[in-house]
Amino acid sequence: MRNFDYCTPTRLLFGKGVIAQLPAVMKPFGKRILLTYGGGSIKKIGLYQQVLELLKDFEIVECPGIQPNPKYDPSVLLGVRLCKEHKVDAILSVGGGSVLDCSKAIAAGACYDGDPWDLISYKVKAKAALPIVDIITLAATGSEYDCGGVISRTDTNDKIGYIDPLLFPAVSLLDPTYTFTVSPKQTRAGIADAINHVIEQYFTGETTLLTDGLCESTILSLMDSGRKCLANPEDYEARAEMMLCCSLACNDILSLGNSSSGWPCHSIEHALSGFYDITHGEGLAIITPPWMRHILSERTLPRFVKFGTRIFGIDAALDPWEIARKAIDETHRFFEGIGIPMHLREVGIDDSRIDEMAHHIAVNEGLEKAWAPLSERDIREILIASL
Amino acid sequence: MRNFDYCTPTRLLFGKGVIAQLPAVMKPFGKRILLTYGGGSIKKIGLYQQVLELLKDFEIVECPGIQPNPKYDPSVLLGVRLCKEHKVDAILSVGGGSVLDCSKAIAAGACYDGDPWDLISYKVKAKAALPIVDIITLAATGSEYDCGGVISRTDTNDKIGYIDPLLFPAVSLLDPTYTFTVSPKQTRAGIADAINHVIEQYFTGETTLLTDGLCESTILSLMDSGRKCLANPEDYEARAEMMLCCSLACNDILSLGNSSSGWPCHSIEHALSGFYDITHGEGLAIITPPWMRHILSERTLPRFVKFGTRIFGIDAALDPWEIARKAIDETHRFFEGIGIPMHLREVGIDDSRIDEMAHHIAVNEGLEKAWAPLSERDIREILIASL
Repeated sequence: MRNFDYCTPTRLLFGKGVIAQLPAVMKPFGKRILLTYGGGSIKKIGLYQQVLELLKDFEIVECPGIQPNPKYDPSVLLGVRLCKEHKVDAILSVGGGSVLDCSKAIAAGACYDGDPWDLISYKVKAKAALPIVDIITLAATGSEYDCGGVISRTDTNDKIGYIDPLLFPAVSLLDPTYTFTVSPKQTRAGIADAINHVIEQYFTGETTLLTDGLCESTILSLMDSGRKCLANPEDYEARAEMMLCCSLACNDILSLGNSSSGWPCHSIEHALSGFYDITHGEGLAIITPPWMRHILSERTLPRFVKFGTRIFGIDAALDPWEIARKAIDETHRFFEGIGIPMHLREVGIDDSRIDEMAHHIAVNEGLEKAWAPLSERDIREILIASL
Repeated sequence: MRNFDYCTPTRLLFGKGVIAQLPAVMKPFGKRILLTYGGGSIKKIGLYQQVLELLKDFEIVECPGIQPNPKYDPSVLLGVRLCKEHKVDAILSVGGGSVLDCSKAIAAGACYDGDPWDLISYKVKAKAALPIVDIITLAATGSEYDCGGVISRTDTNDKIGYIDPLLFPAVSLLDPTYTFTVSPKQTRAGIADAINHVIEQYFTGETTLLTDGLCESTILSLMDSGRKCLANPEDYEARAEMMLCCSLACNDILSLGNSSSGWPCHSIEHALSGFYDITHGEGLAIITPPWMRHILSERTLPRFVKFGTRIFGIDAALDPWEIARKAIDETHRFFEGIGIPMHLREVGIDDSRIDEMAHHIAVNEGLEKAWAPLSERDIREILIASL
């Protein structure tokens, strides 16, 4: 087991009706709140109005329009400017993981005098960040229980995972009923995103019986609850379980002491959505089986065998290579079965920029150091196999 | 799924050699440190000397002699007095869960003007507590990753679980090598303690596929790593895995959203060690199978079936009652197999005070509200079956 240094100070307030505690939650942080959100969905479900009503004794500065794959320009820059102009005390993020990711970058940028990109690109280490509270309306990224955010910069096709312990939300309010209206497409993408978060932690060199079990349990629960959410979008128990799984899936608690794998699928997918702005979870689902096929080797075989027998109940008495191949097929079949388009062409990506993306990933993501190292050529082959 | 409010702000510094970080860890809390510890074991393994050397720039006030089942008088009272006299800034607990439990009560008592028993007995809610850092030398209670402690008062036979979010350690340093010299008896007791912590969370009315899986994974890992620790006390991987399991086992992370079961085995065992000062983990192991037999009913049957099939691999095609009975037998057999005395008589408890203990538990522990409610008569029957 590797040494680790772990701390997640975020308070999770989970369940139906926890929104009622919002004023008490916000009070210790001050009066002036930057309210970040995306498009109209929080207005459609009445959450926007409810938040304003609950916070009528606070000064609210609005920062709307944060998009999926949140953009440095305009969203981060706008938020930072508003925080500085209005001397904001804290940020309240209402929406999905993209709004929260963007809010994290804003929180750090607001406490920094220079260009916020200095922080996101790790040129400068943040010294402080505004406190963040979030209300999550989409179970997917787990941003509510981690200290990272992914920010896209369209002028350079960069999509950077910006991670700093200063960015843990102080409080995350998670009410599963807010996810009742999440579309099937977004629900599927959330399932795929969270499952892939766990796969990234599971497929690595050093694990334990404990962390394997925690990871397998979370994947199995995501598959089961995810299917139920799709079958009945207002199934509270299923929405709640999926939501909790997503929070745990991107928090290191499932893989304490494991060696780090470098999160290769995320590294590859970040280029896809950086270049094409596709839905992150869909990109991950598409890449995962071709990545698995590509890295399957004598050395990685035992991981695939354990994955296949534990997740899909494949007969452990079969030949290990057969188990591994079946496990990969079943992974593909699961994603396909819940309705995710499983080819890049289906999400509008053809072969025209494959070389460019492979080069971009190879140069920026350091995947030659992953558990199953990937060269530019490997990445290109995985992308071609994903077409 | 039940609503929940969860936060564990403790930082876990885990692995071989993390002690080197102790000065940097302590520095933010101030100069004057109360060093709490037990008997001579930390001197025998050289840890005491190492801590003093590392903290030579701090002012150390020593509070030694904290016993297993830590006592209000003298230990808590002594620690509180020392903190007040020397205006201590923080507490460094070096030892097992008992030392840390006692340190938590001291931390709260040091910030309170009245009798510390007011706090422990919940007559008064603590408003503050000194920061606590701990170095754990025994994998068992999980006190390093929770906000509770158990304090015994010999004059009244009380053994109270004192829980307050103020009592989360700020930092827990966990180096598995410190547990190499833990005796087989204490190692067994630690395994039993941690397994029972998970059982208490698992045997309840409302659970999810996720929390069942997390609990099952932790029990399986404890059984496996625990056996390896007993076979080879210096097996680093096994000691590390057992240590991590213990930290997670008493933290609500494994059972988020589950209904609470009231921790009946702990409630019963607290009377046993309150009256007889036996080893907590042994008491738990002894009680667990008789408690299981007593509560097995049409209503509780499905839990036992899941436990039996998942933990012991009992054939799911068998009759459910047979699975349940086998599961209970296997639980007994596991504890017996690792060498725990499985009868109260073997740890010096006869039938002379059974009635008195049953009454004490019934009056103080509220087990009539447990998932499987227990009356005084039920408790008496479980105790008699444990003889």
